[in-house]
Amino acid sequence: MPKTEAGFRFTNSTIAPIGVIHTPFKHAKGTPIQAVAGKNFRAVVELLPEFTSGLRDLSGFERIWLIYFLDRASAVQMVVRPYMDTAERGVFATRSPARPNHIGLSAVRLLSVEENRLQIADVDILDGTPLLDIRPYVPAFDSFEQSRTGWLTGKTAMEVVADERFEREP
Amino acid sequence: MPKTEAGFRFTNSTIAPIGVIHTPFKHAKGTPIQAVAGKNFRAVVELLPEFTSGLRDLSGFERIWLIYFLDRASAVQMVVRPYMDTAERGVFATRSPARPNHIGLSAVRLLSVEENRLQIADVDILDGTPLLDIRPYVPAFDSFEQSRTGWLTGKTAMEVVADERFEREP
Repeated sequence: MPKTEAGFRFTNSTIAPIGVIHTPFKHAKGTPIQAVAGKNFRAVVELLPEFTSGLRDLSGFERIWLIYFLDRASAVQMVVRPYMDTAERGVFATRSPARPNHIGLSAVRLLSVEENRLQIADVDILDGTPLLDIRPYVPAFDSFEQSRTGWLTGKTAMEVVADERFEREP
Repeated sequence: MPKTEAGFRFTNSTIAPIGVIHTPFKHAKGTPIQAVAGKNFRAVVELLPEFTSGLRDLSGFERIWLIYFLDRASAVQMVVRPYMDTAERGVFATRSPARPNHIGLSAVRLLSVEENRLQIADVDILDGTPLLDIRPYVPAFDSFEQSRTGWLTGKTAMEVVADERFEREP
């Protein structure tokens, strides 16, 4: 366990999948690189049955955050050439999968909740991706229109899809 | 490893802290319950030195996502009474820490980047929290003003602080 000034309290807890995300995307190549760019794509979140009761009240939300494990992400790189740029950038200034912890985050549109299955849209996630968390998208907490966006200023993800640069075999 | 229809590919990867978040909040009691409610509070993110080069280009972003481990979150509950409500809600329809995977997510304001330290503001995070990821906040991907917000409609987090209901001893 790495140590810093304050030390870590990373104790008696583990992170484990709570479900799986079924999507049309079998490989990184051709997958939208951000949820907003995946507008025409639908997908299904299948929660493990023991967590079904945690979905109560979720259907009132138009959009949800999915946190998931990028199980096919490649090795970690501190500097990457992101899909939306030709220059190299620090990985934490990008959304590249080549980050130290292969955690993915997408704000997807929630279409319906039925038992342990969610129908969703606006998807940029590979098929079979292990789900770690679901939480409601709340504009008062999550929406900040005026944020400066550094190197991404003026770039748009709408016509960009991924290639295989960050992918490894499952 | 739990199985679903598709099975999991949760293989040769681990999730481990990449740094620590130093904040004024020693206990859940009194801590803002969302980053936007912590506007007057500043904090420092200390990244492990081996990840410093991944911060290149980050300073151009006004706001960043922090993903972290809720190391003092209590046991998992599928139904919770959230801070902002008097009724019980499914945990996935809330931002309660009592979720199956104790992963936290905050959009904080980035004030400066110096070596492996980030000065940040708008903080709702406990002192000593293990950091898992940093990524830029990009309105085109993250900002959705019109989202319906279910049971949270009309409620505001601005005057709400946490109590000890979801906390355990470190």
